[in-house]
Amino acid sequence: MVRTEKEIKTRSDIRQRIQEALQQSGAGGCLLSVDVNLYYVTGRIYNGYCYIPAKGEPRCFVIRPQGWSGEQVVYIRKPEQMAEILHSQSIPLPDTLLMETDELPYNACLRLQNIYKPRVTGNATALLRSLRMIKTPWEIEQLRLSARLHDKTYAEIPTCYRPGMTDLDFQCEIEQHMRRNGSIGLFRTFGANMDIFQGSILAGDNAGVPSPFDFALGGEGMGAFAPIGANGTLLKEGMLVMVDMAGNYTAYLTDMTRTFALGKLPEIAYRAHRVSLNIQEETEHTARPGTPCADLYRLAVGMAEKEGLSHCFMGTKQQAKFVGHGIGLQINERPVLAPRSEETLQPGMVFALEPKFVIPGVGAAGIENSFLVTENGIEKITHAEEEIINLK
Amino acid sequence: MVRTEKEIKTRSDIRQRIQEALQQSGAGGCLLSVDVNLYYVTGRIYNGYCYIPAKGEPRCFVIRPQGWSGEQVVYIRKPEQMAEILHSQSIPLPDTLLMETDELPYNACLRLQNIYKPRVTGNATALLRSLRMIKTPWEIEQLRLSARLHDKTYAEIPTCYRPGMTDLDFQCEIEQHMRRNGSIGLFRTFGANMDIFQGSILAGDNAGVPSPFDFALGGEGMGAFAPIGANGTLLKEGMLVMVDMAGNYTAYLTDMTRTFALGKLPEIAYRAHRVSLNIQEETEHTARPGTPCADLYRLAVGMAEKEGLSHCFMGTKQQAKFVGHGIGLQINERPVLAPRSEETLQPGMVFALEPKFVIPGVGAAGIENSFLVTENGIEKITHAEEEIINLK
Repeated sequence: MVRTEKEIKTRSDIRQRIQEALQQSGAGGCLLSVDVNLYYVTGRIYNGYCYIPAKGEPRCFVIRPQGWSGEQVVYIRKPEQMAEILHSQSIPLPDTLLMETDELPYNACLRLQNIYKPRVTGNATALLRSLRMIKTPWEIEQLRLSARLHDKTYAEIPTCYRPGMTDLDFQCEIEQHMRRNGSIGLFRTFGANMDIFQGSILAGDNAGVPSPFDFALGGEGMGAFAPIGANGTLLKEGMLVMVDMAGNYTAYLTDMTRTFALGKLPEIAYRAHRVSLNIQEETEHTARPGTPCADLYRLAVGMAEKEGLSHCFMGTKQQAKFVGHGIGLQINERPVLAPRSEETLQPGMVFALEPKFVIPGVGAAGIENSFLVTENGIEKITHAEEEIINLK
Repeated sequence: MVRTEKEIKTRSDIRQRIQEALQQSGAGGCLLSVDVNLYYVTGRIYNGYCYIPAKGEPRCFVIRPQGWSGEQVVYIRKPEQMAEILHSQSIPLPDTLLMETDELPYNACLRLQNIYKPRVTGNATALLRSLRMIKTPWEIEQLRLSARLHDKTYAEIPTCYRPGMTDLDFQCEIEQHMRRNGSIGLFRTFGANMDIFQGSILAGDNAGVPSPFDFALGGEGMGAFAPIGANGTLLKEGMLVMVDMAGNYTAYLTDMTRTFALGKLPEIAYRAHRVSLNIQEETEHTARPGTPCADLYRLAVGMAEKEGLSHCFMGTKQQAKFVGHGIGLQINERPVLAPRSEETLQPGMVFALEPKFVIPGVGAAGIENSFLVTENGIEKITHAEEEIINLK
């Protein structure tokens, strides 16, 4: 596993930020085992735990894979060994221990509490999601790398279409282009039951079908066991086809949506798409460090309302109550651009903005791009044709 | 959402089995919200909860999607409303409540405990995994349907190969055949950090690389953020290529592995493959209702040992300590064919048997099929050529 100097520095900076946060909050340590958090802190995913004390060297307690070395690597067979190992190395167990309490199963948490016996258990999920919100220079490079390959795949999308296809046929072709361009396949999400496969394609009225998940739009999906996205709709004249496939070309996910058309559409479709582009443009003019995320939500909703399109903004039967979200190791990181969001933009945040409209009888129109918050504004990092593209 | 009479009966039988188990254990009710459990019990995946009292009608508390109806469907905005609704319907809150304590995050469990205020919290994960182990006739039909499409894809695998490919190129072609044959893409696993995408292909020495996950074999994967399976190995003369791609053509997963060869291999590769087939054959002769799962593990290990192949059975540097596992809504259900397994085979169980060997310098040889436990033996439900197949 070869790592660049820049990645090594990122891991070291990240651990330092965690330790500073632990010291500020008065917590003695933090124990991580969720895939994205392990990767964030150690650059690896493994079966085991990473214990980070507020001061001193972290310990990687590894159950599997076998064969690793390094002074911070300690092999264990079961988590109970962690306490005795820390004890033998004269590392005190923390009085307050942060654990991934929004991610780790209840019984797994109880077991770890029984090992570390902290007087107080704090929330490492909240801390890590807060830190992961601000990307390091290396993380921003990874996002730019994903974005470039995401762009490449999107430029190839028109070649994936052939008349007579269903939305699933079309998706299958796009998936192959993704994989050939280096997509890792995995598409990590935060939260329960966010079962999605490589993204979503919504054609015609399937765009308005509510889904159980907290994504911007829904779709019936392939069945009750996979209730989101493409449902086998035959692609035909007069339809909009919205493509929102994952930018999973590194561990860091970019997010991008483009709208495709089959033949001539009613005027409302073009107008709604134009409003989405205008919302994006206005956001680009407005957003800068210090901008409240809730203001960006209100800006979008206000513009949709002014155009008389509130009823179909972010869905019809079920409307998403956000217009954007942080991206990174998971597709739904902080901040959220939602009415009650208390976050303000900060340099190093990376978020997706996705103003979308669902036009009954036609499909979904709109745009989504990934943006980096810079020192004095925001920078679009995904680039593909933004107008509605005709499929032929 | 159209359901057959047979599926409707399955859901009703399943709920009855849960209620009988609740009554026997003295628990007052069980609260489910994990995707596979909701699907198992209600036939749907949604954002919300299903409360099943030991006696009386279950309640589906739905947050999203909007638009459902039915006498058991109750819409809520937040889980706290469940208690007041049950109270208003004169349904008593249970003294002992089973919750998905091996799956639900710690904080989510605390929140639900604070709503239901049970005196005792029991383990619904364990109960559901125990019930899900024995499939209903409808579930067996779904598994057979997955198996038929799994067979179809596997018959097409030789057409996916072209000289000069890497393992990832080959996998990408197979993935497209899977999707065209109806694969749902999703590949559900039980447990933490089991991040796998559509299965795994192992070529040459990558077959022996340990992975963090609890699958039979490993592989380096595409990077530290996706550490399992294909790693970009160039497929070449003298290599074994093991294909273990998901049978995810319905909500129910079948599991199947086949071994492919490039040119002439050393004799040990053919012999190891033959031993795998012999282990399978001997297992088919031995296994019947009442057979201890641990005996089947010992049978396999004993045969490998007798052939002098213990050192490369189920891996080399890291050896899996099981030769089979239950399959169903997740790829790793109960029972497990492992040395300390306390389960015995019962009619209606469905499991994968996967005796495999890793030959240094060559790759992995072996076989995997899915089996149904019948009244008097086991029946193989996946069917594809079992000999080593030459890729040309």
